Amino acid sequence: MDDSLLLTARPATGPGVLLTDLYELTMLQAYFDEGLDATATFELFIRALPKGRNFLVAAGLEEVLDYLATLHFTAPEMRWLRATKRFSKPFLASLEGLRFTGDVDAMPEGTVFFPDEPVIRISAPLREAQLVESRLMNIVHYETLVASKAARCVLAANGRMLVDFGLRRSHGAEAALLSARASYLAGFTGTATVEAGRRWGVPVFGTMAHSYVQVHGDESEAFERFALAHGGNATLLIDTYDTERAARRIVSLAPKLQAKGVAVNGVRLDSGDLANHARRVRAILDDGGLDSVAIFASGNLDEHRLAELVASGAPIDGFGVGTRMNTSADAPYFDCAYKLQEYAGEPRRKRSEGKATWPGRKQVYRRYDAEGRFAGDTLTLVDEPQAGEALLLPVVRGGLLIRPRVALAESRAHANRQLSRLPLRLKSLEPADPPYPVTVTEGLKHLAAQIDARS
Amino acid sequence: MDDSLLLTARPATGPGVLLTDLYELTMLQAYFDEGLDATATFELFIRALPKGRNFLVAAGLEEVLDYLATLHFTAPEMRWLRATKRFSKPFLASLEGLRFTGDVDAMPEGTVFFPDEPVIRISAPLREAQLVESRLMNIVHYETLVASKAARCVLAANGRMLVDFGLRRSHGAEAALLSARASYLAGFTGTATVEAGRRWGVPVFGTMAHSYVQVHGDESEAFERFALAHGGNATLLIDTYDTERAARRIVSLAPKLQAKGVAVNGVRLDSGDLANHARRVRAILDDGGLDSVAIFASGNLDEHRLAELVASGAPIDGFGVGTRMNTSADAPYFDCAYKLQEYAGEPRRKRSEGKATWPGRKQVYRRYDAEGRFAGDTLTLVDEPQAGEALLLPVVRGGLLIRPRVALAESRAHANRQLSRLPLRLKSLEPADPPYPVTVTEGLKHLAAQIDARS
Repeated sequence: MDDSLLLTARPATGPGVLLTDLYELTMLQAYFDEGLDATATFELFIRALPKGRNFLVAAGLEEVLDYLATLHFTAPEMRWLRATKRFSKPFLASLEGLRFTGDVDAMPEGTVFFPDEPVIRISAPLREAQLVESRLMNIVHYETLVASKAARCVLAANGRMLVDFGLRRSHGAEAALLSARASYLAGFTGTATVEAGRRWGVPVFGTMAHSYVQVHGDESEAFERFALAHGGNATLLIDTYDTERAARRIVSLAPKLQAKGVAVNGVRLDSGDLANHARRVRAILDDGGLDSVAIFASGNLDEHRLAELVASGAPIDGFGVGTRMNTSADAPYFDCAYKLQEYAGEPRRKRSEGKATWPGRKQVYRRYDAEGRFAGDTLTLVDEPQAGEALLLPVVRGGLLIRPRVALAESRAHANRQLSRLPLRLKSLEPADPPYPVTVTEGLKHLAAQIDARS
Repeated sequence: MDDSLLLTARPATGPGVLLTDLYELTMLQAYFDEGLDATATFELFIRALPKGRNFLVAAGLEEVLDYLATLHFTAPEMRWLRATKRFSKPFLASLEGLRFTGDVDAMPEGTVFFPDEPVIRISAPLREAQLVESRLMNIVHYETLVASKAARCVLAANGRMLVDFGLRRSHGAEAALLSARASYLAGFTGTATVEAGRRWGVPVFGTMAHSYVQVHGDESEAFERFALAHGGNATLLIDTYDTERAARRIVSLAPKLQAKGVAVNGVRLDSGDLANHARRVRAILDDGGLDSVAIFASGNLDEHRLAELVASGAPIDGFGVGTRMNTSADAPYFDCAYKLQEYAGEPRRKRSEGKATWPGRKQVYRRYDAEGRFAGDTLTLVDEPQAGEALLLPVVRGGLLIRPRVALAESRAHANRQLSRLPLRLKSLEPADPPYPVTVTEGLKHLAAQIDARS
C-alpha cells in the first residue's frame, strides 16, 4: 500500500486531542458504559449567511485530515485525565488505543457553498465521530470564515495584488497561519506571515515599518539604506511624516541608487486618504521618471474600501489587507453546526426552536447554466440522486485516505474557477436578489416529517 | 541564581520565531548591514476604545514572557531562510545565536487600562526589539480583547456562574485556549475547553450535546443513562425536542435515580426564550421536589443578553458564554500598536495622519478616590514621576526575569480587585459620561512639540 494512502502515517502536529469540549468526553464515558458504538453520521453545515453575504467558500478540509490522521491520546494526556478522577478506569483504558477509523466525505476546499449544505460528513463509530466535533468545527469554521471574506476582497480588487497583512491582530497564532492559508486559497497573492510561506509555500511579501524610518534621523537616509540592503526588491513606506514629501525624496534619491545599480520596487501608503495620496504620489514619481515604481496601499481595508478605491480609479497596484479580513470583522463568526444525522442506520433530527436540522445522510447537487455558471443546488438524501454535479466527494474510508492529499495551489485554482462561475448577482458586494436557489427534495422533507411524527 | 529567575530556562513552546511578518526580517537585514543595534524602546498600546466600551483589561503578559524566553531560530528555520535567498550569509549567521537580552516593563495581567497607555514596554538591542513586534502584538491584542469583553460579561452576570463555551467558533486552536485563559482571568468561573484545564488549571465544566439525546430513541432513557454514568455530576440538556416536556421527564425520572443514589445536578437550556423557559422549568422542577437542580442557560449570549436575563429576574443559576465573547463579536479587534518611542537615548515620534504617537519612555500613574476607586490616570515620561500608583512594573532585565512568574489565579484575583475599583459609571454597559480621565503631562506634550519642530 502506498504510504500516502495511509491516513495515520502522518506525523503528530497541532494542539492535541484535549483541545475539545469536556462534554465530548463525558458523553464518551456514558456511551462506553452503555456499550453504544454503532456507526454515527454527523454533518457540518452553516445555518445562515451573514447579513449582506451571498455565498460561502469551503476551507479547512486538509487540516481536518491532519487532525484525524493524528488523533490519539498521548501518555501525558492520559495521566492528566486519570488525575481528574472524572472518568472510570475501563473507559480511560478504551481511550488509549483510540484512532480515527471512520469515513469522510467533503466538498473540496475552495468550493462555493450555501446554508444548510453539508461541507463535511463524518461517518464513524459513535465515540470517534462525537469526540472530533469541537476541533473539527474549530478548524472548518475559521478557515471557511476567512476564505469567504477573502473571496469578497478578491472580487472587489478586480485583479489587483492582495497581500494578507493580518498576523498581529489575528486571534492568536493559528488564526494568523490559517488566515494566510485561507486567504491565499481564496485568491490572495500572498501573505506577510513568514511561517505560512515555510509551511504551505504561500508567497511571502514584506515592506518596512515606520520604526525603520524613525530609527534613522533622516527619512532619505532610511530609504537609501533599505534600498541598498534589498537590491531591487525594496518597497519603501512613505507616510511616516509627510507622504508627498517622502515621494519627492525618493525621486531625488533615485539617480544615486541607480549609480549603484539599485532600483526602488515600490512605495507603500498606510494612512490618510489613500486615493488622493496615490494620485499625487503617482504624479510625483512619474514626473521624476519613476513610472516603474509600484504603489501599494494598506490601512483598515476590507472589500468595501477596496471596491471604492478600485472604482475611484486611484493608481494603486496592490493592497495589504489585514485585520478586517483576518477577523472577518463584519461577521466574526458563522452560525455553524455539526449535527448527528443518522445513528445505527436510522436518520435523526434535532428540533430545538429555531435550530431544526434536515435528517439523514445528505448530498448536494449543483446545476449549471449554458455559460457554465451556477444555476441552482439541490439538497437531497445520498440515495436519492438528482440532476447536476455531486459536491461532496469521498475522501477517507475506514480511516484511510482514498485520494492523494490536495496541494494548496490546486485548491486555489479550484476556488478561482468556482468564483468565475458565480452568477453575476452573487459576485456583487450587495445582497443578491433573488438569493441563490437551494432546493430541498420532497424525499428529504418527507423523511423530516416522518421523524417528527415519531417522537 | 534561582532557576525561576532565568528567563531562558523555560522549554520551547509555540509556533516558533517565523510566526512574524517578513518586514521584521527585511528590516533586521538592513539594520545588520548598517551596524545599527543600539537600545530601542517600543511600547504597545491601544489607540481608542471600541464604540460603547469604557475600559480595557490587560492580558497576555505571561505568554509574552514564554515567547521571549524561548525566542531563537531553530536549525530547520535557518535552513528554510537560507533557501529563500532573500538574506545575506553574514546576516543569517547573526540570527543563529539570537536570544532576547532586553528589558520588559508591563502592567500586571488583569490591570484595567485606557487608550494611549502603554501596557508593555520593551527596551532591547534594536534587532531584538523589532523582531518580536508581530508575535508580541498577536498575543497581547487577542488576550486583552477577550479579557476586556469577558470583564463586561462578568459585570453583567452580577455574581452568576459563567463558563466559556467558545472553542468551536474561536479563531483556531490558540484562540480557543487563550480565550479560556483570558476569560477566566477576567472572572469567568471556568471553561469547557479541556486543554485549558490541563495547561493552566482553569476549572473545566461540561454538560451534554443534542446528539447524545438523539442517539437514544427515548429522551428519558438518555437522561437516565447519562445521570448514571456521571453520578451526581450530570447536567442534562433539555431542549432537543420540547423543553418543558423534558423537565417533566426529569421529575418523573428522579425517584428511580434516587433509588440508585444518583441526583441530577442541573439542566441546560440552549434555545428559544431563555427567561420564559427558565421560569417554566423552575416551576416544574420545584413542583417535582427538585429545587436543588440548577438551571444553566446558553445560546448566543453576550454581556447585553446577560444583563437582560439578570434584570428579568429569570431563575438562571449559570451561563455558558461562547462565540460572542471569544470573537469579541461587537469589536473583533482593537486598534493596537507597537511603536518605537526611543532609539539610542533619543525620543522618537510617528506623525502619520490620524496615527501620531506620544514619544519617549512613558509611565502611567493612577490616582484613587476616598473609596479606593480609580479617580484618574496621568500619562508621563518615566523620569517625570506623578502623584498616584505607577502601573508599569519592571519584569525582565537583561533577558532575566526579576520577579517570579505570576500564577493565573493570582492575576484573576488582581483583575477582580481592579473591576471592583472601577468608578460606577464605567461598570455600566453604556458609554460612561464623562469617560475616564487620562491626562497627558506638559512635559510629554512639550517633548512631542520639540520633536515635531526638529523633523
